[in-house]
Amino acid sequence: MRTASSVDGGSDGHDEGVLRPGLEGVVVAETRLSEVDGAQGRLVIAGSDVEDLSREVGFEGAWLRLWGAVADEAGVAQLEAELGAARVEAFDRLSGLREALRATDGMDALRAGVAHCSVHARAGERAQAVALTAATAVYAAAWGWLRLGLGPVAPDAGLRHAEDYLRMARLQATPGARVSEVEARAMDRYLVTVIDHGLNASTFAARVVASTGSDVVSAVVAALGALKGPLHGGAPGPVLDMLDALGDSGAQGIETWLGDELAAGRRIMGMGHRIYRVRDPRAAVLEEAVGELARAGVGGARLARAREVERAAERMLARRHPARALRANVEFYTAVLLEALGLGRQAFTPTFAVGRVAGWCAHVAEQRATGRLIRPASRYVGPMPARSAAG
Amino acid sequence: MRTASSVDGGSDGHDEGVLRPGLEGVVVAETRLSEVDGAQGRLVIAGSDVEDLSREVGFEGAWLRLWGAVADEAGVAQLEAELGAARVEAFDRLSGLREALRATDGMDALRAGVAHCSVHARAGERAQAVALTAATAVYAAAWGWLRLGLGPVAPDAGLRHAEDYLRMARLQATPGARVSEVEARAMDRYLVTVIDHGLNASTFAARVVASTGSDVVSAVVAALGALKGPLHGGAPGPVLDMLDALGDSGAQGIETWLGDELAAGRRIMGMGHRIYRVRDPRAAVLEEAVGELARAGVGGARLARAREVERAAERMLARRHPARALRANVEFYTAVLLEALGLGRQAFTPTFAVGRVAGWCAHVAEQRATGRLIRPASRYVGPMPARSAAG
Repeated sequence: MRTASSVDGGSDGHDEGVLRPGLEGVVVAETRLSEVDGAQGRLVIAGSDVEDLSREVGFEGAWLRLWGAVADEAGVAQLEAELGAARVEAFDRLSGLREALRATDGMDALRAGVAHCSVHARAGERAQAVALTAATAVYAAAWGWLRLGLGPVAPDAGLRHAEDYLRMARLQATPGARVSEVEARAMDRYLVTVIDHGLNASTFAARVVASTGSDVVSAVVAALGALKGPLHGGAPGPVLDMLDALGDSGAQGIETWLGDELAAGRRIMGMGHRIYRVRDPRAAVLEEAVGELARAGVGGARLARAREVERAAERMLARRHPARALRANVEFYTAVLLEALGLGRQAFTPTFAVGRVAGWCAHVAEQRATGRLIRPASRYVGPMPARSAAG
Repeated sequence: MRTASSVDGGSDGHDEGVLRPGLEGVVVAETRLSEVDGAQGRLVIAGSDVEDLSREVGFEGAWLRLWGAVADEAGVAQLEAELGAARVEAFDRLSGLREALRATDGMDALRAGVAHCSVHARAGERAQAVALTAATAVYAAAWGWLRLGLGPVAPDAGLRHAEDYLRMARLQATPGARVSEVEARAMDRYLVTVIDHGLNASTFAARVVASTGSDVVSAVVAALGALKGPLHGGAPGPVLDMLDALGDSGAQGIETWLGDELAAGRRIMGMGHRIYRVRDPRAAVLEEAVGELARAGVGGARLARAREVERAAERMLARRHPARALRANVEFYTAVLLEALGLGRQAFTPTFAVGRVAGWCAHVAEQRATGRLIRPASRYVGPMPARSAAG
């Protein structure tokens, strides 16, 4: 029985006509890049658990792993140099992009800026990925300054990618001032943590575009557009809204406020996860990074306050739902960590893109190597012409 | 049995784990917009066969039908005025986009140009679709001039969309000179013919982006990137290469050349279709339009030659494959028609986008109204960590 309007005769006949509007459970690709196991609370990225990856190799190393390369010292040093040079090149192109990067919304700016990139036909896939990884960081950072009407901070090709991104992006009194080692490490861990996460909607959008034989710039621009969507890019903002609302309430004030929220049937922002049944492993990685920042005194009273709220919320949720592990999630720590590093909330989704672009590029290469044109079916539910079918 | 790494517990359990890399036959949406019936050679767009739609309502009318609106005289006049005003607005924004529109590749230019658009939150979906339909035409036309280092032609808000696009886009000695009525009608029929075509890869890319709650600009930019891919946007170029190769051979020379191609096992460019088992109905519509151009003397000797090649190829293919209907396809007529209208082959895919953008915008609105986050599964085939799983 064919109820689907398939335009391709190649269907294998399974399951014909069942509407699957979210494509849940439909396996559209085999991937060597990452595996999300929500039931076990496990995220494997290119052969390593995310916890190990973020501790052991850093952003450059994780980037290399996605390309199946060995992340040894020489490889990392080589990639650091390539990314540094590519950041300088991206910065040199900024003069033609100021209009694009003055958009109010950071993701609009990034989409328009990256859409200007063009692929050099002779550049290999890896070189293109380097260029796009660099451009995303440079444009995300430049946008923050340009929308204020100020000049962007130039990259320092000698720094590691995460450190240089934070240095360029942070809107500080001395533009481009060095960031501390603990801050650089925290940004690095954040970027590794979000570098890839299965076939999420932005990665899938990139693969759909790549499946037509289009170029990696087009695919990454599509992914940026998808990441902009609130159902995907997440909303770390509400976590900060909660901290704002709590002001400088004491421990008792926090408990009362949270208790009122729960009594009113509202969710506590940044707690629990709709995908992971147990704890999102990325939250554990970021929690460590946040703890390190706190011990180093970065983030000040606000970070201390966030940790207090986290502990109070976990305690209260454990009392209410002893069987469930409702702990602070990746959005909670993302918000707290990026804010402690001096980034405003408008820069959060662009910063997510600075990490995830590495995954997108690797998925595009994989799609090109192993995939085929992605073209699902639809079921027509509109009116039919009154007259008989045309020949 | 779960072999797929689904991140969502919502799978309905059917068909779990079967790899479907092209999503063939997987119904991902119900749509009121179009139905492609390859077996019957039928394309229904918003309740009308494409043949009728292109004869009866024109581009503005087809655009309205996609939005479920009545395409009566008042509605068409109103949309004409809206599109005209939006073209003027898009042209006024060009000064900030010259860098974007100077790209060598027309689709790179269009992607970068449209990526600059931003959605006015207060504008309704229809107004946004008007703005994007207008911008695509204005930027596609402007790119042709800008890449030559010349100034673009300003729109004339009083003209119908297809006519004004052709007038702006045609690189002629007198920039912006009026086009004849028969030329305007041919362009109009072309735009209607390509306005929508089920869940092709670009339309699907737009819906994936829209499914995250992102905006229509992001979705259209993703679609432009997908349309750029040679597996999707098609390649009308090779048809012209064939005509070039035939030069001014006589009827006998054409038969000999085609016979040699067939004897060598090569396909004749622009003949047959991989989806439609019988004739692609769009080819019939464009054939009519090409015939009308030929009778009016538009396209000159080259068009006459194309018609001669077409007839010879159809005759020879019918002798070789009497059971199959290997006739000139939509790419053949697209190439011949757009060339006869004075557009260079580099402008073909951008011109395709000028029509299809209407379908993309309508699909985005439909996705937002009825769809959900599109997030398929993948199967991890990379290495697993040696140590036991992290908690």
